[in-house]
Amino acid sequence: MPTQFDPPSGTRDFLAAELDARERAFTVIRSVFSRYGFEPLQTPAFERLDVLLGKYGEEGDKLIFKILRRGEHEASGEADLALRYDMTVPLARVAAAYGSQLPSPYKRYAIGPVWRADRPGRGRFREFTQCDLDTLGTTSGLADAEVICAVHDVLSELGIADFRFLLNSRHVLAGLLDAFGVPAHLGPGVLITLDKLDKMSPAEVTGELAGRGLGQDRAAELVGAMTAPDAAERIRAALKPSEEGAAGLDEVDEALSLLRTTIPPDRVEFTPRMVRGLSYYTGPIWEVVAAGVPGSISSGGRYDHLIGQLGGPDTPGTGGSLGVERILLLRPGAGAAAPGRRLDVAVTIMGQEFARRAFELAAEARGAGLRSSVYLGASHKLSRQLRWASEQGARWALLYGRSEQEAGTVTVRDMDTREQTAVPAAELPSYLADRAGLS
Amino acid sequence: MPTQFDPPSGTRDFLAAELDARERAFTVIRSVFSRYGFEPLQTPAFERLDVLLGKYGEEGDKLIFKILRRGEHEASGEADLALRYDMTVPLARVAAAYGSQLPSPYKRYAIGPVWRADRPGRGRFREFTQCDLDTLGTTSGLADAEVICAVHDVLSELGIADFRFLLNSRHVLAGLLDAFGVPAHLGPGVLITLDKLDKMSPAEVTGELAGRGLGQDRAAELVGAMTAPDAAERIRAALKPSEEGAAGLDEVDEALSLLRTTIPPDRVEFTPRMVRGLSYYTGPIWEVVAAGVPGSISSGGRYDHLIGQLGGPDTPGTGGSLGVERILLLRPGAGAAAPGRRLDVAVTIMGQEFARRAFELAAEARGAGLRSSVYLGASHKLSRQLRWASEQGARWALLYGRSEQEAGTVTVRDMDTREQTAVPAAELPSYLADRAGLS
Repeated sequence: MPTQFDPPSGTRDFLAAELDARERAFTVIRSVFSRYGFEPLQTPAFERLDVLLGKYGEEGDKLIFKILRRGEHEASGEADLALRYDMTVPLARVAAAYGSQLPSPYKRYAIGPVWRADRPGRGRFREFTQCDLDTLGTTSGLADAEVICAVHDVLSELGIADFRFLLNSRHVLAGLLDAFGVPAHLGPGVLITLDKLDKMSPAEVTGELAGRGLGQDRAAELVGAMTAPDAAERIRAALKPSEEGAAGLDEVDEALSLLRTTIPPDRVEFTPRMVRGLSYYTGPIWEVVAAGVPGSISSGGRYDHLIGQLGGPDTPGTGGSLGVERILLLRPGAGAAAPGRRLDVAVTIMGQEFARRAFELAAEARGAGLRSSVYLGASHKLSRQLRWASEQGARWALLYGRSEQEAGTVTVRDMDTREQTAVPAAELPSYLADRAGLS
Repeated sequence: MPTQFDPPSGTRDFLAAELDARERAFTVIRSVFSRYGFEPLQTPAFERLDVLLGKYGEEGDKLIFKILRRGEHEASGEADLALRYDMTVPLARVAAAYGSQLPSPYKRYAIGPVWRADRPGRGRFREFTQCDLDTLGTTSGLADAEVICAVHDVLSELGIADFRFLLNSRHVLAGLLDAFGVPAHLGPGVLITLDKLDKMSPAEVTGELAGRGLGQDRAAELVGAMTAPDAAERIRAALKPSEEGAAGLDEVDEALSLLRTTIPPDRVEFTPRMVRGLSYYTGPIWEVVAAGVPGSISSGGRYDHLIGQLGGPDTPGTGGSLGVERILLLRPGAGAAAPGRRLDVAVTIMGQEFARRAFELAAEARGAGLRSSVYLGASHKLSRQLRWASEQGARWALLYGRSEQEAGTVTVRDMDTREQTAVPAAELPSYLADRAGLS
């Protein structure tokens, strides 16, 4: 039941435990991308409305969050800006704006929120993190393979256990239509139906193909080849006579050979039925499926005309997107989100007259590289303060009162064992650093 | 001259060098805040419009970016959401929404963009990063001092050379008005004028005070006390007889005593004329000035009723804000923004037949912890590829062709010295890791 204090529909507040887990994942992603020589890019949250409109189709346009004009123009009810809907249109704008200032090829990643006015619910958000990796300015198949290997390494370093790359090529798909005599005007529809082979039975797919106007025999032959136990070989054999099919096979085989330098063989598979709905792809296409997750957790491909179509320079490109929100749910330990340790050293205050000394002890602990804070509440009861120390997940509590003052010591309480040690005041920083393994 | 490819007015694209420098600064900030036991919070980019409206005064309301309703409601020209204007209203909402789930006291920091439809230009942005640190739920002066010490450590660790904390208290200001017999109805105006003592002459301030209706003698006496060489002592002496003034002095002295555990004495100063314009402060107030920067680079104070006024629970609070955009400009080396090193190891490709081997070598270098990529261009000329390696800032280029294949070696070229070494292929990863100081 939403209350007036909830964040807006489809958005989330991230408190510390979840935010820390997300940031750790982003750190892994950035580190892998950087190891491949990709550099970060950050564009504004909003773009001029005309930069975004018309780039995502009619349905997409409806999902854009538009920003009202301001001041005297507010009353017009018109929008002039809009929240970023993806990372690709801003990339096209950046490629146009900075041109020769950018390295060539331009290998960049972008991690940040995008906003879509989708109907929220069922794990869909209106504000969610997108994570894209792209190389502009080269037609080399090495660039495609590099993107795929980087995505592989990210998933592997994030500890995702059971995932697999499905690899195909737009040329293979064109060759398939050619090889099985699919009339050109039926091509796009046939591909859309073939892509359903992962969730519909062969008979159903054959039926749908026939419904699209493909002859029943041809449909059965095509589906039979795609679903046979030796499908890969049969498709390969069928493609060879087609010029485009043969080129597509070469493209796939080059990619497979490169991917095997980095990706275990059972984690990548030539998948001729895999289509990727988006019509802008022009070469290799791929997606990543993971056990227990419907759909894909990452996908991408080559798009040699897209940047131009989006208003950027006419430059070839290849790239991919990580479904970060889904991937975060798959991480080992995701959902557990323990409140975590906020402090290493919790400093109690045995009376107002010891407040300054307590503050000093906290500073000393920080100087030794430890997270530390004094008790900020009003109670001077030790039991209350130790409960606070325990809520903070502190490893040690420090006690300093009259007797410690006289003895020139600090009492260090181990919060797990409850053991208390009198440490000479001057030795406290090194004592703590030592116990924490920091010295 | 803006072009159609520039980011929207008042916003910026961050390319790699600048973004990396910003991220490094944010990492320092997060690390210091965490060492003090503050935890991160991230709220959505937008809030419901009614959550924001009316919280920032009439002028503030005009600067809010409003988001148009969607679908069938778009034509109404009405807004229902608005971009975050600061971090404090979302904090109040979070305190209300999560109440007892939050640790008590709730010590949180927030670093992220906020949006204000200010007239851009002269170093002002419409999208800029705000960085706030607050403790809710305690009236303890230790909490105020903790915030100030954390801000000090951030500035110090960021390498800001010449900065100073100005410390005061709302109670001191009230005591001052009391001690110098300023009529209650003139109080707020008198304080605003006094605050100009850092940029106007004493005579001008006296004149302005008289213009506000304060007697000429009284104005001269007040300004005389505030600007005398022994101003601090004279103000202290004047405050003591006033009950609120004496309480304010105690507050300041307690804070000074705590701050000196962490902050060098010459970096913090009791500054009775310092007012902080914002009426919501209720206790200690402070700001940080830095050499060569007009205004402050950080500021804050205690606000024991603000969270309640902003729609949150009635909880005391204290906190501060870092002027990140200004501070980033002050960092040593800011502005230099060298393109930086994108790669450690650049792998050349001596011919299509060696592409896979080159790809493998790049993977091996990455496996050794180095950033590495193959050449993705079309040229097979070594000179062109070495130019690319140099543009990437690579420390080494790898060469692998017919002769290396036959000898079972890889040629490692030091990009600085141009020295080339034949390294046995199997030893390449350890050779590189060794040279890079990673093994």
